[in-house]
Amino acid sequence: MERIIYATSKYRIGKNMSLPDLLEHMKKSAALGQVSGIISWDQETMMPEKGAAQRAEQTGVLAALLHQMNTDKRIPEWIEAINEDALCDEDKANIREAKRSYDLATKVPEELAQTIAKASAEGQMIWAKAREAGDFEMFAPALEKLVELKREEAQCLSSDGQSPYDALLDQFEPGARTETLLPLLEGMREPLVALRERISRHPKPNGFEGTYPTKNQLQLAHDVAKQMGYDFSAGRIDLSTHPFSSGGSGDSRITTRVDEADPLNCLYSTAHEVGHSLYGQGAPDPYLPAAQYCSMGVHESQSRFWENQIARSRPFAEWLYPQMKAQFPDMNINSPDEFYKAVNRVETGYIRTEADEVHYNLHVLLRFELERELVSGNLQVSDLEGEWNKRFMEYFGLEVRDVKLGVLQDVHWSVGLFGYFPTYSLGNIYSACLDEAMRQDMPDRDDKIAKGETGEVLKWLRKNIHQKGRLLSATELIEQASGKPASSAPLINYLEDKYSTLYNL
Amino acid sequence: MERIIYATSKYRIGKNMSLPDLLEHMKKSAALGQVSGIISWDQETMMPEKGAAQRAEQTGVLAALLHQMNTDKRIPEWIEAINEDALCDEDKANIREAKRSYDLATKVPEELAQTIAKASAEGQMIWAKAREAGDFEMFAPALEKLVELKREEAQCLSSDGQSPYDALLDQFEPGARTETLLPLLEGMREPLVALRERISRHPKPNGFEGTYPTKNQLQLAHDVAKQMGYDFSAGRIDLSTHPFSSGGSGDSRITTRVDEADPLNCLYSTAHEVGHSLYGQGAPDPYLPAAQYCSMGVHESQSRFWENQIARSRPFAEWLYPQMKAQFPDMNINSPDEFYKAVNRVETGYIRTEADEVHYNLHVLLRFELERELVSGNLQVSDLEGEWNKRFMEYFGLEVRDVKLGVLQDVHWSVGLFGYFPTYSLGNIYSACLDEAMRQDMPDRDDKIAKGETGEVLKWLRKNIHQKGRLLSATELIEQASGKPASSAPLINYLEDKYSTLYNL
Repeated sequence: MERIIYATSKYRIGKNMSLPDLLEHMKKSAALGQVSGIISWDQETMMPEKGAAQRAEQTGVLAALLHQMNTDKRIPEWIEAINEDALCDEDKANIREAKRSYDLATKVPEELAQTIAKASAEGQMIWAKAREAGDFEMFAPALEKLVELKREEAQCLSSDGQSPYDALLDQFEPGARTETLLPLLEGMREPLVALRERISRHPKPNGFEGTYPTKNQLQLAHDVAKQMGYDFSAGRIDLSTHPFSSGGSGDSRITTRVDEADPLNCLYSTAHEVGHSLYGQGAPDPYLPAAQYCSMGVHESQSRFWENQIARSRPFAEWLYPQMKAQFPDMNINSPDEFYKAVNRVETGYIRTEADEVHYNLHVLLRFELERELVSGNLQVSDLEGEWNKRFMEYFGLEVRDVKLGVLQDVHWSVGLFGYFPTYSLGNIYSACLDEAMRQDMPDRDDKIAKGETGEVLKWLRKNIHQKGRLLSATELIEQASGKPASSAPLINYLEDKYSTLYNL
Repeated sequence: MERIIYATSKYRIGKNMSLPDLLEHMKKSAALGQVSGIISWDQETMMPEKGAAQRAEQTGVLAALLHQMNTDKRIPEWIEAINEDALCDEDKANIREAKRSYDLATKVPEELAQTIAKASAEGQMIWAKAREAGDFEMFAPALEKLVELKREEAQCLSSDGQSPYDALLDQFEPGARTETLLPLLEGMREPLVALRERISRHPKPNGFEGTYPTKNQLQLAHDVAKQMGYDFSAGRIDLSTHPFSSGGSGDSRITTRVDEADPLNCLYSTAHEVGHSLYGQGAPDPYLPAAQYCSMGVHESQSRFWENQIARSRPFAEWLYPQMKAQFPDMNINSPDEFYKAVNRVETGYIRTEADEVHYNLHVLLRFELERELVSGNLQVSDLEGEWNKRFMEYFGLEVRDVKLGVLQDVHWSVGLFGYFPTYSLGNIYSACLDEAMRQDMPDRDDKIAKGETGEVLKWLRKNIHQKGRLLSATELIEQASGKPASSAPLINYLEDKYSTLYNL
């Protein structure tokens, strides 16, 4: 997207003289955001223990400076002075995103923003203690305060009659509305519950047993990332408590984690984060707003696509199984077929992050409905634990006896993230839409994947998703890439097919 | 130095209300400086290759923001409003340093500062190419431009009738003047040349032969750092092309390098950087200006002290030799005594950074005189190569046949660092002053060092140097710590003693 500069330069006469200034400012703010990203990557991977207090100070200074740049009063003046009609699509999108980020940064009064930041930091600490103690009551007052503050924030952010919840959702999934998400997400509940029940009547395949040395797990993670097209000269893999990806373009890093009793943890964390980072490495420009990722849902579609549609597929097992066997000669799984079954075991459990593909979205649906009710005021924090447990029994058939496995399992609400959960399911839905379309474009995909050849898959995603940046909205982007509006049908079909074969349903 | 806040709070009435604001601003600027340090550490150790272009952009934005903070117009207003008489010594020093850094940041017009920054970046690139090509002429125009710009800069910085060279020197060694440095440094020439000549008539001890695996070298580096009291929970060791230390207080990192044919490279680079980092870890406060390192010369005294007076000493060889032998069982050096001789081989060579303790300061003296003449205009850049070679023959008895081993060996001048070289020799002089005083305070030091017990050494440095921060000038600090004014006599005595024994002079 370097070409934007040239494409628009011919229009840089009269009114549009302010465009270069605006773009230069956005570039600097993006570069400072990248600094912030490296500093927080460092904190999770490299920082010595005693650096924590200084790091908090450093992060605070960076955040304040970034806020200062993003609320620069020249931004609306520059935008005002631009004649948008004379712009190419890329610059129209740049202006739209500049407006959007300025609005997000300025609509919430600074005092409220600071109160929320403080309540989030405290919330996370209290949540961690409450979780440790297994005591929801301990966390409830902090959560109540956060819900109230986020409602206030939502009112500041709301435009065009948006509901408070939608105003929060919009931060992560621009343009998304509850009324359009509801049929998309809720429509999955019935078929997923039915599928889960059919599967539960069948015996489970073998799982992994034994010990898997860290060194070999990391070598495998490296090999898998390489095979997927991750560019190590524009990234690196390190260890952290919770895997994440960060950065973009020439510096897109990922982390993973290792559990010596479970080789799938490292393997699929890596595949997931590589999916995110390939999106980052494929961005058309490191700084321009229109060149960044489209939405959190689309970002998640990339990680889930590589994790599930590729790395948990039957053809990929053909390539992956011998790699596993080479690293772990004593492994108790003895064929690509057994491997495929083992990495797709379905088991009803309490924890979202450990859920298989069949259960995952049911976990998200529970959170989506509860957080909507919390924000709207239909549900009180004091009733949250009871409601969680009641609905968990209803949807999963399991009684929650330990709140650590229940409402206290996720960090999100404790740091004020309301409206974030649905983007996880959107990611799954979008990844299945893209998968369906890609299969039509590449009839021999399975043969290639079985040989570990993922180059054309990446090329397809580069062309249809990565290179598009933020030019289109998420729904437009997915519709354009897959040839029809996003729906949950491709995901349900994919899961039905996959698990019917796997479990002989 | 946290106590500064309390010590002064009782004075925070009337005029001194601006002190907390000033200190808070200085703290934020220090925190942003730390961010900058981590980002450049990352660049040298972790950054993937393709991150370079984005890194340049990020560094530029950070530098501009830091400059903005350091030139904030409120700084002189705050200072002006403070009644210094009512302050404790620490806060007097904080104010003095706040003034100093404001002056350094504002006295040079922004346009000139930017021109110098650009000329330095270009200078380094051209220097690298010229060095590669072995062609001084290629570098000369860039150097000429830099000398001219630095003269201009010196004029802006100069106060109280300082010469241009002294104005540059003052940036690195506050308060230092050529007229006081000259006798200190030049006084070493004659005894060092005499010592070198006496040694040269004796046969050289054995050096290291064979191969030393990276893994074992790094393990040894780790063990030596630990033994010296380096706190790994407030730091870490990584690899980089050129070893360096960075950060301070709770996050003081070092890097080292490995040459598998020469175990001393990694070993003594590590000891050197650990010396720097122990100073950083011992700072009384992470942010306050009066709590930072005193001067570059004092900083270098800490690295050289641990590298030479400790790690190259006979008693330390008692502890270090068995550690070496454990890592490298096939090593050709077979006793602590042989080890001590091998790590203190004296050999006349071309390269400053590879020089032994006898030759090192002679290399610095050459640069000190040449750069003074360049800045004063007594020497033209066009004559520099010839002068270098002529004087090198005079002082070292060697003909420079390759400019890479001559005037093009150091990066300093190419990035506009004039007035920096003498701080290396000051470091050596100061380290010997401290050594002499410490020996008097700790008569059993050798016995302890022989057992690897360095705790009391560090304690002495913490008390007499590290905890003093920037309260005193470098000369005051060294005088207070060693009980008499700094002179080169302790260094010359130390070298005479050491090498007389080593070479049976």
